Amino acid sequence: MRWRRPGGADQARVLAVLDDWWGALGGEAGSRQRALLLPRLFFQHFADTSLLGEATDGRLTAFLIGFRSAAQPDAAYIHFVGVDPALRRRGVAAGLYRWFFAQAAAGGARRVDAITSPGNATSVAFHTAIGFRIIPGRRTVDGVDVQVDYDGPGLHRIAFTRPLTPADTARASES
Amino acid sequence: MRWRRPGGADQARVLAVLDDWWGALGGEAGSRQRALLLPRLFFQHFADTSLLGEATDGRLTAFLIGFRSAAQPDAAYIHFVGVDPALRRRGVAAGLYRWFFAQAAAGGARRVDAITSPGNATSVAFHTAIGFRIIPGRRTVDGVDVQVDYDGPGLHRIAFTRPLTPADTARASES
Repeated sequence: MRWRRPGGADQARVLAVLDDWWGALGGEAGSRQRALLLPRLFFQHFADTSLLGEATDGRLTAFLIGFRSAAQPDAAYIHFVGVDPALRRRGVAAGLYRWFFAQAAAGGARRVDAITSPGNATSVAFHTAIGFRIIPGRRTVDGVDVQVDYDGPGLHRIAFTRPLTPADTARASES
Repeated sequence: MRWRRPGGADQARVLAVLDDWWGALGGEAGSRQRALLLPRLFFQHFADTSLLGEATDGRLTAFLIGFRSAAQPDAAYIHFVGVDPALRRRGVAAGLYRWFFAQAAAGGARRVDAITSPGNATSVAFHTAIGFRIIPGRRTVDGVDVQVDYDGPGLHRIAFTRPLTPADTARASES
């Protein structure tokens, strides 16, 4: 697998594989919703803190879209991560997150924030295993604290935060 | 009208007025679409380059969400602007844009990018009047160049760019 920074033109490719990787979840409306969550602007303007993996045949295998917070210099934010289902359980997502931690720490950030949807137990397990803690919320779903209406009416989210540690920075200086 | 930087908690207020200002366009699906275009992350992480206006009674009157491009240091981007319909044709939107030009120019940007939806003649007229040019596209709608599938399948956009001029910078040093 080769890794590179994405560009604006990669947005269409990412959306196309998302429909496949998500098993066309939600049909056309789901596809539209994913497009709205990943407008081209992220690929154009946050490419320097984002990463895209390709197989030797050019197929997209994984990606991470993240950015440094302009308003909160201490914070970096992971917006969207996807891995080809055929490559799951091989540490690809963890590798993407560690790369993000390293470059964020090297750039001076002291924490990384991320969110996920209530009920996504796999995502919750992944985030807590890699050092994120769940921010307390007004409600719980399946025993997990949830931020009600976090992204709009009915758009509840689980919010995570993870401090960046000296180990993250050390990793940055190695790479 | 008072102006201030937004915070994460303002997202819900902005979404609420949008339904009102947009005349509930698209019903519940339209409301959901606007929420997906304006997730809380913009209010949390790009507050320093965004602005929100409130009447003396606290009612929201206008807002601009924009950011500096991390990957393209020359560029700044205006993501979403709204003005209370009761205040339209009074130069409120132009004032918001000029504020954004000034702070972007002061921060070292040399151009501002923005997009709008095909068929939105008011938006096209506004952007060209304030110095944006339309980026050539593969197709035209109502005589205006359009970027086909710019933000995803069927999500065509008109793309604008405007150089930041010495006059923008001068305005920044005055404010």
